[in-house]
Amino acid sequence: MKELTERIKKDGRVLNEDVLKVDRFLTHQVDPHLMAAIGTEFATLFADEGVTKVVTLESSGIAPAIFAAQAMNVPMIFARKTKSLTMNEELLTSSVYSFTKQQTNQISISKKFLNEDDRVLIIDDFLANGQAAKGLIELCQQAGASVVGVGIVIEKAFQPGHQLIVDMGVPVYSLARIKSLSENQVNFVEED
Amino acid sequence: MKELTERIKKDGRVLNEDVLKVDRFLTHQVDPHLMAAIGTEFATLFADEGVTKVVTLESSGIAPAIFAAQAMNVPMIFARKTKSLTMNEELLTSSVYSFTKQQTNQISISKKFLNEDDRVLIIDDFLANGQAAKGLIELCQQAGASVVGVGIVIEKAFQPGHQLIVDMGVPVYSLARIKSLSENQVNFVEED
Repeated sequence: MKELTERIKKDGRVLNEDVLKVDRFLTHQVDPHLMAAIGTEFATLFADEGVTKVVTLESSGIAPAIFAAQAMNVPMIFARKTKSLTMNEELLTSSVYSFTKQQTNQISISKKFLNEDDRVLIIDDFLANGQAAKGLIELCQQAGASVVGVGIVIEKAFQPGHQLIVDMGVPVYSLARIKSLSENQVNFVEED
Repeated sequence: MKELTERIKKDGRVLNEDVLKVDRFLTHQVDPHLMAAIGTEFATLFADEGVTKVVTLESSGIAPAIFAAQAMNVPMIFARKTKSLTMNEELLTSSVYSFTKQQTNQISISKKFLNEDDRVLIIDDFLANGQAAKGLIELCQQAGASVVGVGIVIEKAFQPGHQLIVDMGVPVYSLARIKSLSENQVNFVEED
């Protein structure tokens, strides 16, 4: 997605060969027009999949996910990283291991919002090791829902997340795929 | 805002006289069309204020805030409740006391995103004791920015938050104002 890769080149900052910081338009300050364009792009890509729910993980996934849900005319659900005080009903839960923080966290969605008739599109801001996307897929599978795909804003294609998700039988579509990060330069995977 | 109050009557659940649960359309599962309408309403209400940034607090404030920002053609910034691993620069921070959790948390925004030329509209999903809104106002004031108003989706008008914010010199506009919660009934403040 050209608008996105141009924005990454302009406003992304490479902190080291593993970390790209995009807090100027995605992960902290958020550009609503870019997010709306991203949502429309996901809706177009998954238009034939009969999506009934968009699922993401708080917090950076919410902005792209809500615009995808708007464009697809379905609800968006964000999984929580901490249990809310009023989440007193039955929950779907799974574990997400963070390599950067070296800790495992539980994520959860109220059971009442997903069922076996649902066809879920998972949206997230980043795909690296794939642990968050894997956890979200597991939540949906617990509910008996079908996961029709994972839509990612920025994929670090040099990390194993993409293959992990594909090996779970779920298609992955990333709007920007990064081959490598080096010396303040972002190198993208060349598209056909 | 009639569309919102009708939705609260239809899908809100009164857990007790203090707690209204709106996880079917706002705080967990989110209705993108209602959020877009809410964003447009905030943009209309604050159209003459020269707003340059919309600021909210993760996570439930993000959906209404991003649509308000889209409608006002400005960026949205969400304050973080936990420090991100890549937030290694100077931060604006303030403390938010949670009466329900009985604990104080730090919230933060990167200093580079707000300055003395900014005119900020703060958006949040709920206003009760006003501690989150107060903390967000303090972050903006640390940066020298002007806070032109606080826009709230649902205000519990029987709690002291509204008066606390007004006493700070900041106007509050809430799209739904709840007078009381009782026996599975939501009673709204009557509008003129």
